[in-house]
Amino acid sequence: MHKKLQRFISDYQPIIEDKMNHLLAATNVSDTLKSSMAYSVNAGGKRIRPLLVLATLEDLGVQSDDAVTVACAVELIHTYSLIHDDLPCMDDDDYRRGKLTNHKVYGESVAVLAGDALQTLAFEALATLQDTSAEDALQLIQLLAKASGSAGMVGGQMLDIEGESKRLSLMELENVHVNKTGALLSFSIEAGAILAGLHQQKTAKLKAFAWNIGLAFQIQDDILDITSTTEALGKPVGSDISSDKSTYPSLLGLDGAKERLAEHHRLAGEALAFLEKDQPLLGLFADYIVDRQS
Amino acid sequence: MHKKLQRFISDYQPIIEDKMNHLLAATNVSDTLKSSMAYSVNAGGKRIRPLLVLATLEDLGVQSDDAVTVACAVELIHTYSLIHDDLPCMDDDDYRRGKLTNHKVYGESVAVLAGDALQTLAFEALATLQDTSAEDALQLIQLLAKASGSAGMVGGQMLDIEGESKRLSLMELENVHVNKTGALLSFSIEAGAILAGLHQQKTAKLKAFAWNIGLAFQIQDDILDITSTTEALGKPVGSDISSDKSTYPSLLGLDGAKERLAEHHRLAGEALAFLEKDQPLLGLFADYIVDRQS
Repeated sequence: MHKKLQRFISDYQPIIEDKMNHLLAATNVSDTLKSSMAYSVNAGGKRIRPLLVLATLEDLGVQSDDAVTVACAVELIHTYSLIHDDLPCMDDDDYRRGKLTNHKVYGESVAVLAGDALQTLAFEALATLQDTSAEDALQLIQLLAKASGSAGMVGGQMLDIEGESKRLSLMELENVHVNKTGALLSFSIEAGAILAGLHQQKTAKLKAFAWNIGLAFQIQDDILDITSTTEALGKPVGSDISSDKSTYPSLLGLDGAKERLAEHHRLAGEALAFLEKDQPLLGLFADYIVDRQS
Repeated sequence: MHKKLQRFISDYQPIIEDKMNHLLAATNVSDTLKSSMAYSVNAGGKRIRPLLVLATLEDLGVQSDDAVTVACAVELIHTYSLIHDDLPCMDDDDYRRGKLTNHKVYGESVAVLAGDALQTLAFEALATLQDTSAEDALQLIQLLAKASGSAGMVGGQMLDIEGESKRLSLMELENVHVNKTGALLSFSIEAGAILAGLHQQKTAKLKAFAWNIGLAFQIQDDILDITSTTEALGKPVGSDISSDKSTYPSLLGLDGAKERLAEHHRLAGEALAFLEKDQPLLGLFADYIVDRQS
């Protein structure tokens, strides 16, 4: 990872974590519920979405006192979706990032409620910004709702479930990911643009950037699934191609997936030209997403 | 039920249902998810919360083009909470109002996602009001978040789960209900007051009204649980008193619960005096809540 990005991340990760815990500290009528919400909020994670909000503002050279709160709102949505995703009736995962999942520690009913309440908290955070106009705050809420609801993240999760047992076309696969992960990544960048008061034409460039890194993120995930399996389990590269689940490598082959990844990387970089910066943070983020090994 | 209230309900119920289906018709990337959301939205129900929003405006003599949308936002939150409440890991109910519960029709994973997306839709609806100032819309979002999240409805559900296996004091029992059902009923009435531009002193009166009918609603529920059981199953009146679950009759006896119900009814009526109306709709609602037999 580029040193400039590394410094940015290590500067801001603790600020994001502090703010999330501050938001959690508000009134909660049940200690168990509060503890369950805090458990998942503090379960680690790269904080990519909140960092993208802050990196966008940094690249645009604008400061906003509300930036960290908005960044945390996206992460709260992401966190709630992970809790519900891990439930026995969904992916049925016992561990996430080496820690027991929420329902394994608190039980399923508490995990459902903790996810529900974290979603609510995200919208509450956006409704109580201090230094943003009411119009901008409403636009942020509207966009976050679209990005995270049935026309975005939750809709994408549903498509993912529906697609598990059938072979998807490339377009269908892209539709899953654009919604399931892309919508929230795009929101993060658009939210930064709104807080910076960026005009529409340039926001469109940032949206193109977001769209491309969203897909790049997923393609690299799919590639790592194969390459890390190869190293760790000694299974031949490409073993997923014959399995039921549609992935970029299963549809395009590993080389085809890598080509597509490179193309999204290139387009993401091009979209940032308007910044007229040598090393925009967002560009370094794109490099990191493409080059990461885990 | 009083004829005036009956007319009001039959006038507005179809308008509320239409609007909710209109909100659902917006973009949704999965037909199954959309169908699951629509199933629960159209599964009947008295629509008490949205009707309270509209009745408050009617009693205040104010019209608002956004009233029905705000009313639907509360009902969407109520609907999502019922879907999640019915899940096997929660109350594990197969039927609600004589219809199969959401997860019995669509499966658990879809039901979790449908609930999640309905919550999001509620906030999206409030973020896209047409005739309300951005400041008022933000206040509505803030209040709905507080009323429905960990400091309100979801927190109350958690307290309810925690209280299942122990004997609660009257104050603890009240705390469950004030949060679990009271917070959203109060929001409905406060939302009407905000849309009507009511000044704070009078809003406080309406909040007192809401607090009292919220508790009256729950006490009558507890009483009906006993009296309907008596008629239907031939169990002796008061059989719940010896059971584990704390209810108003189990703590106060049936007569004590009825006295408390009457007191809340009286206080609710008093709080409406400022309206200087012969038969305010809200008063008729209070009568209905206390007198209802189901």
